[in-house]
Amino acid sequence: MKTITVNIDSRNYPIYIGNNLLINSELLSKHIVGKQVFIVSNSTVASYYLDTLLATCQGYKTDFILLPDGEQYKTLTVLNRVFDQLLLNHHHRDTTILALGGGVIGDMAGFAAACYQRGVPFIQIPTTLLAQVDASVGGKTAVNHRLGKNMIGAFYQPKAVVIDLNTLKTLPEREFRAGLSEVVKYGLIQDANFFNWMEQSAEAILQKEMEPLAWMVQRCCEIKSNIVAEDETEKGIRALLNLGHTFAHAIESVTHYQRYLHGEAVSIGLCLAANLSYQMQSLSASDCERIKQLLLKLGLPVSIPADLYKKQIITAMGLDKKNIGGQRRFILLNQIGNGIIHDQILHDVIEQVLV
Amino acid sequence: MKTITVNIDSRNYPIYIGNNLLINSELLSKHIVGKQVFIVSNSTVASYYLDTLLATCQGYKTDFILLPDGEQYKTLTVLNRVFDQLLLNHHHRDTTILALGGGVIGDMAGFAAACYQRGVPFIQIPTTLLAQVDASVGGKTAVNHRLGKNMIGAFYQPKAVVIDLNTLKTLPEREFRAGLSEVVKYGLIQDANFFNWMEQSAEAILQKEMEPLAWMVQRCCEIKSNIVAEDETEKGIRALLNLGHTFAHAIESVTHYQRYLHGEAVSIGLCLAANLSYQMQSLSASDCERIKQLLLKLGLPVSIPADLYKKQIITAMGLDKKNIGGQRRFILLNQIGNGIIHDQILHDVIEQVLV
Repeated sequence: MKTITVNIDSRNYPIYIGNNLLINSELLSKHIVGKQVFIVSNSTVASYYLDTLLATCQGYKTDFILLPDGEQYKTLTVLNRVFDQLLLNHHHRDTTILALGGGVIGDMAGFAAACYQRGVPFIQIPTTLLAQVDASVGGKTAVNHRLGKNMIGAFYQPKAVVIDLNTLKTLPEREFRAGLSEVVKYGLIQDANFFNWMEQSAEAILQKEMEPLAWMVQRCCEIKSNIVAEDETEKGIRALLNLGHTFAHAIESVTHYQRYLHGEAVSIGLCLAANLSYQMQSLSASDCERIKQLLLKLGLPVSIPADLYKKQIITAMGLDKKNIGGQRRFILLNQIGNGIIHDQILHDVIEQVLV
Repeated sequence: MKTITVNIDSRNYPIYIGNNLLINSELLSKHIVGKQVFIVSNSTVASYYLDTLLATCQGYKTDFILLPDGEQYKTLTVLNRVFDQLLLNHHHRDTTILALGGGVIGDMAGFAAACYQRGVPFIQIPTTLLAQVDASVGGKTAVNHRLGKNMIGAFYQPKAVVIDLNTLKTLPEREFRAGLSEVVKYGLIQDANFFNWMEQSAEAILQKEMEPLAWMVQRCCEIKSNIVAEDETEKGIRALLNLGHTFAHAIESVTHYQRYLHGEAVSIGLCLAANLSYQMQSLSASDCERIKQLLLKLGLPVSIPADLYKKQIITAMGLDKKNIGGQRRFILLNQIGNGIIHDQILHDVIEQVLV
């Protein structure tokens, strides 16, 4: 088992990465303060792992809720069901919420923990690749609003992140590949060597060989936790993590979160961001092509499908919360391994990229 | 104008107390970071002060929402209307939310600010005595759940608290008196001299004489901000501020937030807490009587009306979030001016007090 420490002011917490961590009750107990545990999961994940986790939590008064599976259920209304169950089961201020699932579960359980009785402890137990390398680390929690994604939320750090790599074995192939776009993102914004390694290791990773998989998850968590430690609430450098995401959120929004998995939309977004960087003359054409080729090799989409209207996407981007004071903020690449924040992208250039 | 500084880690902020602060655009501007302002108020308060505040915010893109007036509207559903308007009016991450109103408005606007895009700046402009001496200071924000009061919320500090004492002139007499119960509370938990002064100044205060009023508000803000600075998230001493509140919340809950103003329920709660302290042999009978007499003098209720069932109240208290790990936590008085936290109150004693 590897342990990475996230250093945020005085609130340090560990990320554990390894096999069979879901049955490690000693590990979990270290981060449960009271006598109550409340598991938030969905029926898909629960069918594989809920019984296991319940057995691991044997010493505690444990209740759970299974939420419907999918980004479209990441709403205030569904969140309120979590509060209903917490209150009906008399969970107190020192209950510990466990998020067992992917990014949606982590976001909702984390936000529920942030708000329930003004904040209770929670532990992230991510079971998808995307959640393991990205969503579960860094304390961003949120639900969607009909007018924009992740518009209602909190920065709220977990007590621990427990990554059991075994859970990737039951993850559908499509979801696994989707998670890889965020992995590529880390290489792009901060680690050219890691990007190179991904190019070389693509096949081993797609085969889910345990050793490269463990290293890959570890490296992503290291990069992310360093960035988050430097800038918890995204006043500066943390914005780099949004590479491709302004595009991705717009694509998800106009397709009503139904057509693409988040990671797939991010893959398209990464290509658009690379293209934008090229248009702004900060990235070479060959690097632009390498990025596209790696994503293709990983089985990910790399362009906006012809049936989506450019105008819709631009409108959807207007509401994106990454705009500061009305300006359009974008993350660009200077080269592979070096992301930069750019606050003055002209509307025309965006239009060009979206062609 | 008096300025009190609340020292919470690195996030210090001022409480301004004075006359005509609502028209002081220079003062307000100091705490508005971006170009956008969003005012949250209700129609009652807005009829007196919205135009004034809009004029003061002239230099900014200003939008507002008027919420229905009353504790029963402090819900997630109504909160979502605030998010609707923020998004429809394209408010960004650097918008500043102004809470213009009483405790309900402060709680909702503050919680909206805590959650909107994972946190935007906000300024408290309390217009009721209760909000000025209590709710607006200390960063507690929340909405109610059908199963309990203030169950969903956040600790989220404002950038500033602007207390314009003039607003008390338009405050209905009943609401003014209700606010005085929280004033009495501060004397009880921490300042015997202030309690004595309240006994002597009761009439001048009921006449709304400006000098004693200003001093009274100032002293309350000082006591509260010192306690909050020491314990922002209520792990310890901050719990003292809940003197009488476990009873009060239960009384409000069983009367569906319709019969009593919060401050009135607190007044009854203070008498019950005093009685409980007497039963636990920590408070003398004569001090118990002084507390009751002061609250009566201030025109406040001091006992549970005969038509409420003891059992209902006890059930309602079972869900109160001030219970740690299932135990019943109560704030007691050792003497006037000295509150203590007590974690092991027996059910029988509570029953006795509620007779």
